[in-house]
Amino acid sequence: MKSIMEKKLQGEISDITRHHLENFYKDNPFPEVIGLHIENIEYGSVTMRLDVRHDLTNFYGIAHGGVAMSLADTAMGATCLSCNKKVVTQALNYNFIRAAVEGTRLIATGRVIHNGLKTMVCETEVKDEEGELYGKATGTFFVIGAFDGK
Amino acid sequence: MKSIMEKKLQGEISDITRHHLENFYKDNPFPEVIGLHIENIEYGSVTMRLDVRHDLTNFYGIAHGGVAMSLADTAMGATCLSCNKKVVTQALNYNFIRAAVEGTRLIATGRVIHNGLKTMVCETEVKDEEGELYGKATGTFFVIGAFDGK
Amino acid sequence: MKSIMEKKLQGEISDITRHHLENFYKDNPFPEVIGLHIENIEYGSVTMRLDVRHDLTNFYGIAHGGVAMSLADTAMGATCLSCNKKVVTQALNYNFIRAAVEGTRLIATGRVIHNGLKTMVCETEVKDEEGELYGKATGTFFVIGAFDGK
Amino acid sequence: MKSIMEKKLQGEISDITRHHLENFYKDNPFPEVIGLHIENIEYGSVTMRLDVRHDLTNFYGIAHGGVAMSLADTAMGATCLSCNKKVVTQALNYNFIRAAVEGTRLIATGRVIHNGLKTMVCETEVKDEEGELYGKATGTFFVIGAFDGK
Repeated sequence: MKSIMEKKLQGEISDITRHHLENFYKDNPFPEVIGLHIENIEYGSVTMRLDVRHDLTNFYGIAHGGVAMSLADTAMGATCLSCNKKVVTQALNYNFIRAAVEGTRLIATGRVIHNGLKTMVCETEVKDEEGELYGKATGTFFVIGAFDGK
Repeated sequence: MKSIMEKKLQGEISDITRHHLENFYKDNPFPEVIGLHIENIEYGSVTMRLDVRHDLTNFYGIAHGGVAMSLADTAMGATCLSCNKKVVTQALNYNFIRAAVEGTRLIATGRVIHNGLKTMVCETEVKDEEGELYGKATGTFFVIGAFDGK
Repeated sequence: MKSIMEKKLQGEISDITRHHLENFYKDNPFPEVIGLHIENIEYGSVTMRLDVRHDLTNFYGIAHGGVAMSLADTAMGATCLSCNKKVVTQALNYNFIRAAVEGTRLIATGRVIHNGLKTMVCETEVKDEEGELYGKATGTFFVIGAFDGK
Repeated sequence: MKSIMEKKLQGEISDITRHHLENFYKDNPFPEVIGLHIENIEYGSVTMRLDVRHDLTNFYGIAHGGVAMSLADTAMGATCLSCNKKVVTQALNYNFIRAAVEGTRLIATGRVIHNGLKTMVCETEVKDEEGELYGKATGTFFVIGAFDGK
């Protein structure tokens, strides 16, 4: 049986969406504060990375849980945008699997598992560059319109 | 029937835990970056607040989802600490209910709903000063030891 | 500060909704199979109970996790109905806190924490008759229409 | 980068675990009541199926949400067992994606994404025989011992 993971979502990113994602930091303060970078943009899958700098750690010397969740939420939200859907996050569930020490480069690739007219569901793993798993998120999104306004 | 919400957890905060919570910012970079403040410390319930400054917003002009989740995670984690338990977050579920515009003061009071030897469950609402609800979180925690090392 | 828990949702249950809830088992096979009973109906809060019979247990001799989640899902769904909203569950998060042995009477009272036009968020504790907590659920719901068809 | 999904967990199912899983219905009432069948057992991945019979539906004529969650919980729990870990479910998050009408055959294959000494994290999709996605679950588990008692 073909896994949902292997299925490619069909579609094309609109120009306005690509332009927006490529200018991700413009008027987008918090992602800039924590150093979120877009690595790759595809229809239905956006990859972001974040380096665990000292200012993103907690008193255990590891990435604060909120940092990992911020990365996951943003990667999944941008993944919805890549499908030309403007969304708000309704609910996010995050499983913490491994502590990310200072210096770790975290990478999250959003995946759409439900692309409805009114709601979307996405998921993302949070991994390092060797592919070790640090966390797993699932997000429930409400579609408020087309991203390009059409 | 008496609600779990009305039940008071029995216990006393150890001196070392109180000292730590009162020096919350010491060697705790990310909470300081986003401006988390401790408002109140009780056994089984710690209240934190955070002002939605411009640098905590996203391109919609509202608090980034990761900011609200950081507040909730920290309030619940500190609530575990108040029971003299050193914990790691295993899983966090967050429901976003209302968008917090710049200038909103968000307040989260952690509550213990399960205080086990090996695991804890906490929850918190995220509200503004008028008591309006912005989000609701539930956290699953693994106990790695006593906070005061005894 | 007044807690959201203490706030009463304003509104009245429509006749058609009350009639439906009072005839809960009509054409509703699975709730009947597991013996779900409605204990109380209020606007924004429906209470259900379920006795942990032998056929609802697993090989550990305790209520199967799916039974507790079925109770929680139904109590929250009926709570949405009590607000005259026809909904589908989008996401449900459940924390298991205590094992329910055969013979336990489990009780769940749904509570609305967000009553939006398009989405709702509910929560419920699952307790026994002494008020001991067995589990806690949060549900995210999509509103597909008014329950009474108006 | 190699996906976690493609990584095979290393290990072998102990004889006692395989024997137990092959006698899944023995003293296991609720899974028998709802007609859960084991389709396949591998180390770190157990597949279960369930036919949406009339008695598993709700008044909308579709599988009750609790039925889908029961399938997911059991498939993930059995997946933990296949790694020779006796576990209790701490938390389960379920996203409902598509309604399963009467007659649908639902299939869930558990996958381990974290195989720790003290905790495990699993996930499962719930699909039909054509591979259409009906739901997605993530489970957080606490390890209470080796399944074979060694």
